Formats: sequence, C-alpha cells, structure tokens
Amino acid sequence: MAVHLAPPDPAQLFPVRGLELGVAMAGVKKAGRKDLLLIRLAPGAVVAGVFTRNRFCAAPVVLAKRRLARSVRALVVNTGNANAGTGADGLKRAARVCEDVARHLACAADQVLPFSTGVIMEPLPVERIAAALPQAVADLRPDNWISAAEAIMTTDTVPKAASRKVTLSTGEATITGIAKGAGMIRPDMATMLGFVATNAKLARSELRRLTKQVADRSFNAITVDGDTSTNDAFICLATGQGPVARAKNDLTILRAAITHVAQHLAQAIVRDGEGATKFVTVRVERGRSAAECRKVAYAIAHSPLVKTAFFASDPNLGRILAAIGNAGVPGLEAAKVDLYLDEVLVARGGARFPGYREEQGVAAMRKAEFTVRTVLNRGKAAATVWTCDLSFDYVRINAEYRT
Amino acid sequence: MAVHLAPPDPAQLFPVRGLELGVAMAGVKKAGRKDLLLIRLAPGAVVAGVFTRNRFCAAPVVLAKRRLARSVRALVVNTGNANAGTGADGLKRAARVCEDVARHLACAADQVLPFSTGVIMEPLPVERIAAALPQAVADLRPDNWISAAEAIMTTDTVPKAASRKVTLSTGEATITGIAKGAGMIRPDMATMLGFVATNAKLARSELRRLTKQVADRSFNAITVDGDTSTNDAFICLATGQGPVARAKNDLTILRAAITHVAQHLAQAIVRDGEGATKFVTVRVERGRSAAECRKVAYAIAHSPLVKTAFFASDPNLGRILAAIGNAGVPGLEAAKVDLYLDEVLVARGGARFPGYREEQGVAAMRKAEFTVRTVLNRGKAAATVWTCDLSFDYVRINAEYRT
Repeated sequence: MAVHLAPPDPAQLFPVRGLELGVAMAGVKKAGRKDLLLIRLAPGAVVAGVFTRNRFCAAPVVLAKRRLARSVRALVVNTGNANAGTGADGLKRAARVCEDVARHLACAADQVLPFSTGVIMEPLPVERIAAALPQAVADLRPDNWISAAEAIMTTDTVPKAASRKVTLSTGEATITGIAKGAGMIRPDMATMLGFVATNAKLARSELRRLTKQVADRSFNAITVDGDTSTNDAFICLATGQGPVARAKNDLTILRAAITHVAQHLAQAIVRDGEGATKFVTVRVERGRSAAECRKVAYAIAHSPLVKTAFFASDPNLGRILAAIGNAGVPGLEAAKVDLYLDEVLVARGGARFPGYREEQGVAAMRKAEFTVRTVLNRGKAAATVWTCDLSFDYVRINAEYRT
Repeated sequence: MAVHLAPPDPAQLFPVRGLELGVAMAGVKKAGRKDLLLIRLAPGAVVAGVFTRNRFCAAPVVLAKRRLARSVRALVVNTGNANAGTGADGLKRAARVCEDVARHLACAADQVLPFSTGVIMEPLPVERIAAALPQAVADLRPDNWISAAEAIMTTDTVPKAASRKVTLSTGEATITGIAKGAGMIRPDMATMLGFVATNAKLARSELRRLTKQVADRSFNAITVDGDTSTNDAFICLATGQGPVARAKNDLTILRAAITHVAQHLAQAIVRDGEGATKFVTVRVERGRSAAECRKVAYAIAHSPLVKTAFFASDPNLGRILAAIGNAGVPGLEAAKVDLYLDEVLVARGGARFPGYREEQGVAAMRKAEFTVRTVLNRGKAAATVWTCDLSFDYVRINAEYRT
C-alpha cells in the first residue's frame, strides 16, 4: 500500500549545469538491477549536508561528513549494502571505493563523497563496485535524473524525483533532486538519502545555512515510526554554473524553491511508507516556540494508538489529546487546546466541541489525505510534520522482512 | 494473546489490618458486572501516590493528588468511565462521588480519594454510582482482595493481584496489592491503576519517598507502546496497624517487599498487553547513570521496528543497535557496546560478534520470555524495563476498538 502522487515525469526533471549522473549494475546484493550511482561535479561546486545523528552511523557517513568542506568533485552511491555496523574495515572499504572513483575521474580520493544504503552489518563488496564503475562513468550525462532516482531505490516502490525553475535577479536557477526511502523505518535497510542540486552560485557558508533550514522543513519533518537510520543523509549541491545568489531576495527565492523540491521528496518517502494507507499532515499552531510545536506534532505523529486510529479512520479524540498531553511541553494547559480534523472543529478548550458530530470526524479521516491541526493558544509559533498510519501491513512487512 | 503467569491465588492475598474492601455493580457502562470498588481505611493510615504526568489528566487525578496529604479514610474506584477530558463538570462529578462516600462512612469528603478508569470524554454517571454505594459498603471486608482486583478490570483479561509477608525487627508486615491495565496503551480506556497496601507504620514523608522509588522500579519501568494515559495512578497505603518501620534495615526490607509486589503487578500489565505474544526484559548495564540506561532501554522498548522483530522472533541486530544509537545519549560510543540475547553474545564492540550464529539468536527469541541485555561499557549504572512485542493483534485491537 502507499499514498502516491503521480510518478515523476522525466521530461520535467531539469538538468543542472555542471552536474552529470551515471548509473550501473554492480550486483552489490542482486544481479540485474541498477545499484550504483555516480554524480560528477564540475570544479567550483559547493556541497553541504545534514546527516543522521544515530551514534551507530555508517562508515560512508563518517567519510562524507569529513570531506564536505573539500572541493568536492564526485558522489558515489550504492544500494544493497549500507556499510553500517562494520567498524574499521567498513571505513577502509568506503575509502577504497572513493579511491577507485578518483582514479576514473582524475581527482583526489578525498574529493569524493561515498553514500551507501541497504542491509547493515555485511562487508561492502568493493570489487563488484570497482568492476561496475567504468559502466557508470560511461553513462555520465546531465539528463540522467530519473535513472539516478531508480538506481538509489531499495524497498521503495516508486522512484522519487522533483524539479523546479525559479527566476533570480541574476538569471534562471534550476533545482533538481532525488531521494530514496520507504519510510525512514528500516535501520537494517539503512534508509533515507536525499540529493538536491542547483546551478546557482552561492557561498559555502550560505549553502550550509540553507541546507539546515531546508532539512528542518522537509526531511527532518517527516516520520513513519520515529526510527532514524544509520545512513540518513540529505545533501545540497550548488554547481555555481548558473545565476549568482547573493542578494537577500534571491536567496529567499532560491531557498523557497529548494524547500519545495525537498518537501516533495520527503513527502514522497512518507507516501511510500511501509503499509501506509493514509498521508497525514500534522500541524501545530500558536505555540510559544517552533520547538514546542514540533514536540507536540511528533508526539501525535509517533503515537502508535493515534496511528492505528488513522488506519481505522476512527476520530478517536482521546488518543490525540492524550498524545498532546504526553508531549512533555512544560506549562501546556489542556483547557486551552483546540483540535481540528481538516476544517472540522472537534475539540475546543481541551474537551469535545458540543457542535461536533462523530460522522464529521469519520468523513475527514476516511480520506487518503487529511490534516490534524492542533491550536495551543499560547503563542505565535507553528510547525508541520508529515506522517502516515500504522496498518496491518506495517507489522507484516517488518515482521516478515528477513524470513 | 497474552503471556500470563498463573492467576493469583485468593488464599494467598493476605488481608492488611486496618483496610477493608467492598465491591458493587453500579452499571457505569454495562449492567451486571463489578465496576465499583470502595476501600475503607481505619484512622491513622497514610497514603502516597505517583500520578500520570499527562497534561490532560483526568478530574479524579486532580482531586486525588490534592487530597493525598489529608488524613485519608477511603478510596473509591469506578471502571467504565474515566471522567477524563470532561473539564469543570468532571471535577464536580468526582467531588460528588466523594461526598456520597463520605456520607456513608461518616468522614469528610476531602478524606476520600476518587479514581476512575474507562472511556474518556463522557460524563460520569454519578447517580448510578450513588445508587450502588450501599452495596459496596455492605460488602466491606478485609479478605476481599480478589474481588477488588476483578472490580477494577476493564479490558484486562485477568485480575492482577499479589501479596507478601516480611519480618521486620518490630513484627511481621503484610503487603498486598492490585492493579489494572492492559498495556498502559489506551488513553481512551484510561488505563493503569495500582494500589498497594501494607499494615506497617511509617511516616508519611517516608512513604512518599518509598512510593516514588518503588514506582521507578515497577510501574514506571514498563511500556507497551510509550503512551501514558490520562488516569494513571500508583497508590501506596500504610495503615499503621502493624509493625513500625523506622529502623533503616526495616525500611529496606519493607521497600524490597513492596517493590516485589509492585513489580509483579506491573509485569502482569505487560503480560496482559494488547496483542502481546512475548514478554521481554530490556536490561541496560554499565552506563554512566541510571537515567541514561533507562533512556537506552526505552529506546529499544519503544522502537516499532524492534518490537515487530520480537514478534517475528527475528534476531535483527541492526534494529536493536540502531535503536540504541537513537537513544540520544551524548557521547555514547557505538564501538564499545556489547549486546546479548539471554546469555548469547550477539554483538561486541558495536559489530556482530564473530562467534555468533543466527540460530542462537532465533532460539533465544522464539521463547515467550527473554532478555535483551545491552552493555554500554562506560560506567557502573544499570536499569531494567519490561515490554512486549508489537503484533498483528495490537493493530487489530486498536484499529477495531471502537467499531
């Protein structure tokens, strides 16, 4: 099950000048499927990233983080093996893949960022990757985004890609991105990767700030089950071959466009969530800070009781209110909280709204997409989180996964 | 499904001098079942409690907390209706029940503590409770514990009771307790109640400290799905009609015995967890503090991925290690972490132990009860949490509950 939008249209995935993509079949885990992606950057590109905070982070994450500040010339991504929980040997293998890439592209090994996704605690088959690299190099071209999106899929049921053009004062900027992940929920298929590139030229420090801001409103605002994988990474690439983004207004436009692409990709992961039958927007308004709004939103989005109620289209107000009460927000007054399902006011001042009829709640929740909106009535901040329901299929998929 | 021990033997539930229990059928939600419990205390008893921290706490919780410091003479517990999410009217109704009890027992209304459990956001039917009180009063007797345990059941499939005698330097102390809850997981059947009584005589301040300590090792150390109900309460009663507990050694013995009874009751809730097919002890050792050990234990016990792996008897090390890595313990070094399934060493230094074979892990996890033991190797503290698995039936029960 899944709650998909229309699949990405390859013709609408715009090339980003200064960036080429090539894919190959390396047979990392299985033969006969694309599992290797090479991204080549022209000199002058800057790169920023946000990575998993899991203490068991994977070997490629350690290397990629360390090399971000370098003049990056290539990214290499394999699926089928996460190279996580592999210790010192894993680091050596990740470094070895980068050396092979560097040899092909005539750059230094530490100008190559490695990424891996797939099963954990298995040694990365570096020879197979090395053998397939020439194929990926030969495939390098700017209009290869859809193929790249397919090459990074693991348990994803659809490729995830999005693109956009915006006009800055200095010219037209292109933003194109891809992502993979079926719900952020498989630390054994270590999980979420997102890459968004633009041709705009901006300072590394600016890209760094922007990447963090975008992540907070996209990949860091989705949850399927609250688990964070050992390999999660969101990377922004700016090739600098297009318009300069320096003026405040240009940066604002660019950030909005990158956020739009990243949100589309992040939401596509939730829509492809394991067992998902509902795509739910959890919005929390009028809190004292964005942080407390996020806390409440995550308390709702993570509660197994709320998520099974989503699955059952059951407007179980008690579960939602109890989740809000459990969010750990100091001084939160239950008697001030209003709750909406889409536009239906279901609870006011912490108790059932007298005019609310259960049929209205059921009607809202029967839809494949709806919004749970909580109004805390104690400040001016807001936050949004996207999530899905908890279904029989979630248990089935995760219980049967390795059998 | 459930992972029960043998049912409590009524003959082994020892009366506690100075305390009588009476039950009645009030028809709060359904006719023809025990749903009202009255506990009468002789003068001189002291009471302490630990309550839900949910901001949407129920009306009876508000009143009971406020009255703990009084000279308590009675507790009144109804099932079928939680009197939660009911605002000012709920407080009035809870107070009204206490007034009725006070009239029957010739004490003041604020010497009565109210407790409710059942559906939330419905008005408490105070008239039905008032009408049934004489029946409960007539039933008051010291050897009524099993009937009391039955009277507080809601979705529980078995009554939960435990008892114990210990010898203090001043005489023999009796400890008997009852609890209800099918997994702490139903904020709409607001959920966990525990009452443990002793005939020992101890200072109110001492009982307060002891109650907190016991709660941390029993009711606050279990989790089915991380949700905390609006009505959760754990109450310790000391009638003072038996041996004085003042010497340090006596207090230690008494605390151990009360902890034993409370752990038995708390574990009985997990064993009766919705859909539970496994009873899992999550032990974390050699942390820097008990708090960080608990954090890691809860990260394991709350992870839906780990819990579905328990259900599947799948020794999925990646999921457990990733949950540990997500616990948010600053400075935790993955490379130092060892992991055991029962006595089987499965991971050492954060990676799969070379001598480990998967059949060993499967054999450990196939059992209805097993221990996941994590050794952090960075300190001397430890903590234990008890939990169950996440099964198809959990989703079924919670998705179908109101339909």
